[in-house]
Amino acid sequence: MTEKKIKEKTQEKSQEGITVKKEENFSEWFTQIIEKAELVDLRLDVKGFTIIRPWAALTIENMFEHLEKELQKKGHKPTFMPSIIPKENLMKESEHVQGFTPEVFWIKNTGDNKELALRPTSETLYTPMFKLWIRSHRDLPLKLYQRGSVFRMDTKATRPLIRGREFIWIECHDAFATREEAEAQVQEDIDTTEKVMHQIYGVPFLPMKRPEWDKFAGAEYTVGSDCFMPDGKLIQQPSTHLMGQKFSKAFDATFKNKEEKEEHLWTTAYGPAVSRILASVIATHGDDSGMILPYSISPIQVIIIPIFNAENKNKIIKKAKEISDKLEKENIKVEIDEREYKRPGEKYHIWELKGVPFRIEIGEKEIKNNEVILFTRDIKKKEKIKLTELKNIQKLGKEFDNRLRKKADKFMENRLVSCFNKKEIKEALSSGKLAKINFCSTDKSGIKCAEIVEKELYGDVRGTLANKNEKPTGNCVICNKPATKVVYIGRSY
Amino acid sequence: MTEKKIKEKTQEKSQEGITVKKEENFSEWFTQIIEKAELVDLRLDVKGFTIIRPWAALTIENMFEHLEKELQKKGHKPTFMPSIIPKENLMKESEHVQGFTPEVFWIKNTGDNKELALRPTSETLYTPMFKLWIRSHRDLPLKLYQRGSVFRMDTKATRPLIRGREFIWIECHDAFATREEAEAQVQEDIDTTEKVMHQIYGVPFLPMKRPEWDKFAGAEYTVGSDCFMPDGKLIQQPSTHLMGQKFSKAFDATFKNKEEKEEHLWTTAYGPAVSRILASVIATHGDDSGMILPYSISPIQVIIIPIFNAENKNKIIKKAKEISDKLEKENIKVEIDEREYKRPGEKYHIWELKGVPFRIEIGEKEIKNNEVILFTRDIKKKEKIKLTELKNIQKLGKEFDNRLRKKADKFMENRLVSCFNKKEIKEALSSGKLAKINFCSTDKSGIKCAEIVEKELYGDVRGTLANKNEKPTGNCVICNKPATKVVYIGRSY
Repeated sequence: MTEKKIKEKTQEKSQEGITVKKEENFSEWFTQIIEKAELVDLRLDVKGFTIIRPWAALTIENMFEHLEKELQKKGHKPTFMPSIIPKENLMKESEHVQGFTPEVFWIKNTGDNKELALRPTSETLYTPMFKLWIRSHRDLPLKLYQRGSVFRMDTKATRPLIRGREFIWIECHDAFATREEAEAQVQEDIDTTEKVMHQIYGVPFLPMKRPEWDKFAGAEYTVGSDCFMPDGKLIQQPSTHLMGQKFSKAFDATFKNKEEKEEHLWTTAYGPAVSRILASVIATHGDDSGMILPYSISPIQVIIIPIFNAENKNKIIKKAKEISDKLEKENIKVEIDEREYKRPGEKYHIWELKGVPFRIEIGEKEIKNNEVILFTRDIKKKEKIKLTELKNIQKLGKEFDNRLRKKADKFMENRLVSCFNKKEIKEALSSGKLAKINFCSTDKSGIKCAEIVEKELYGDVRGTLANKNEKPTGNCVICNKPATKVVYIGRSY
Repeated sequence: MTEKKIKEKTQEKSQEGITVKKEENFSEWFTQIIEKAELVDLRLDVKGFTIIRPWAALTIENMFEHLEKELQKKGHKPTFMPSIIPKENLMKESEHVQGFTPEVFWIKNTGDNKELALRPTSETLYTPMFKLWIRSHRDLPLKLYQRGSVFRMDTKATRPLIRGREFIWIECHDAFATREEAEAQVQEDIDTTEKVMHQIYGVPFLPMKRPEWDKFAGAEYTVGSDCFMPDGKLIQQPSTHLMGQKFSKAFDATFKNKEEKEEHLWTTAYGPAVSRILASVIATHGDDSGMILPYSISPIQVIIIPIFNAENKNKIIKKAKEISDKLEKENIKVEIDEREYKRPGEKYHIWELKGVPFRIEIGEKEIKNNEVILFTRDIKKKEKIKLTELKNIQKLGKEFDNRLRKKADKFMENRLVSCFNKKEIKEALSSGKLAKINFCSTDKSGIKCAEIVEKELYGDVRGTLANKNEKPTGNCVICNKPATKVVYIGRSY
């Protein structure tokens, strides 16, 4: 569903639960989730610009924290670059400018004579600075990043969190002395995606080296992370681009190597779009009752619902606070829902919709028995546990996240299928699967077969596995010429 | 010194130390610091848009962390709002639009028929959303914030970190049911500035309720935090605006009160500009050798310099790593400067320039004696300490920050002076002081006296203390009519 339609539907905000099943109508399910769990708001009514509300913003902040920690561990340092790029910078690399010019927002009144673009991506900000900051091999590698907004006038249907005209992400721009080091960085970035997006957020992916005709404008090659949506379509998550020496040559960014000779830098760029990954988190883990957030990134990990009446209110709230204090001391994100004007059942419903991993219910009876009722969101299990057992929550949280990840992994495994003719590919694609085939070439010469895949089979050649060298076992399934690659074909968002 | 001049000077990057004394030429000192400590870079050459380099970016991230933690503790929740504002929103509140229109950057090609401004501030984004999100007194208070960029086409001289056309800050936008609650929020914001900017970053301030003629465009009143620069001039740091019902009326944002009657919301806005506060941190604490960063926000709290030759290198690096591991376990931010191509003396110099609070020197002799040399940046004290004493670093860090804050407090105290005639005011202002005087009025009727202060004495009426009710003791020092206020007069950035 497009952003416009969603906006129309959300004019009247609804308090009821999710009214469709995720498996039956994923698109409508997603639309209802982002509205009813109060994640985003589209009523500003400017195409592609979304307001992200606290529950999503808090989750996104937690996601940034994991990602930035991992990037810093791997030697990246933060920067703040301007949100604008002077036109002369943007025009320097010819493929880049061709690719991005149609998408650029320009500023009307720049205050001086410089033409300024809102940045669609920041290669043309970082590379000229590399030229100034890097003099010798001793200054290398230089690994920088920024978190912030970029702006692209996307003409395709915009969708909240998934595809916008402004989106928030991290951009890493790294400079190296050799091709080998730059290529190793591409693999390190795949590893970062694995460590954070898969291991922590629980979203599996296939790192795909894109075919020549589908790379980033200005890159030597691009590796995109393909994730499955529940309807079997693919969505591109973090991608890494080996820029090689294209940008360093365009900006004449050199360094003195160990032999004191001037060489051009080798650069890479890595871009995880955190709000978009949140869309994958929601889509991957949620169920018919709403979101299910991984314990590691949920703004509230344990919600306590005290069950009280006018008489015993103080006593029960007091006990709830004791529990909350104890959990907080163990660095657990906990909150008590004390609202008097909502019934416990309504509260259960709200926090299930928002995907909080654990709920503790505590009333008169529980206090008497020194126990609480613990509800686990993903498996919807309700059990009595002794107060002393609450110290296990962190462990249960890890198990929670493992369960989510394993379930997602299994979903993905079931979606991969080897195909040996067009009919098999077509069948695979229409049942939401990814077809693995022998293919003639991912260089320019393969483009004809890719067009056949697109026109006849309504699929995209997503590329070859970037972290594994898969050898073809026969001829190209499309043209029957000798195959040089094993490619994956899917339908995409 | 303006940004343009600084840029010219920094074309040739210099590696030498600071060549001027802070007391003798603060402006040049500041310029050299931000260049030589590698804080910002102006060579992108677009007026008012600055590149913030890793050392400053890491410090700013630490500053954000303290500030956001305090705001969240006080019930604020994060959001991400679009970087743009539709023209129709911006035009709704008449004083606001008059104040901001000349400063707005407009987008040339918006992709549809909507005219879009880059946001100069976000009242006109939050208030229409308050209208949609808040229905009843039960939804109040609603306290939101965002961290991000805003854009203002400032025509005054731009200065790196201090005054730019894009700056990064936090904006809090809060909604309440009553004037009393909104006014209490203004005081809470002053308290947040005290807790974070003064207690943690060590920068003292005076909360000034600005005169009627100097308030934020669209506010009922404004409280600015005035901080001293070393040359005695004032710089405005976080300000809070009581919007009252001006914006809620412009957007017709109402709620149902306890009696089920519709009322307009009361709103406030609070805006700490973190990059600008960094300028105050640098200016307040630095000395003739460079920056001095508070322990609480320094990206590196302890730098270890191993003193080695080819023979004993491995042994000494190993010991340095042991020390580093031990400190890291206590959550101390520590780094070893292992570079072989720099002499220890150069390293001392670099890290002093960057303002790292503690330096540990360790060589052959120190290992033998189970000790290290500890250098403390602010007091420049070098002392031998036993390895076992390193566990005191966190405590020493707190003492370090207390010393910085007390020194800054003393500087400020010495700058306040009561004046009883124009001559005294003029003398106070020319010696970089803040004059406290009896004044006729801070309403519109006082504007004539304010103009005299400006034209004859070259000073600004900064306002009245916002957290203390000071009663005048005589007539207005300017016009000799009965005084209603005690105001402070200073010169400003």
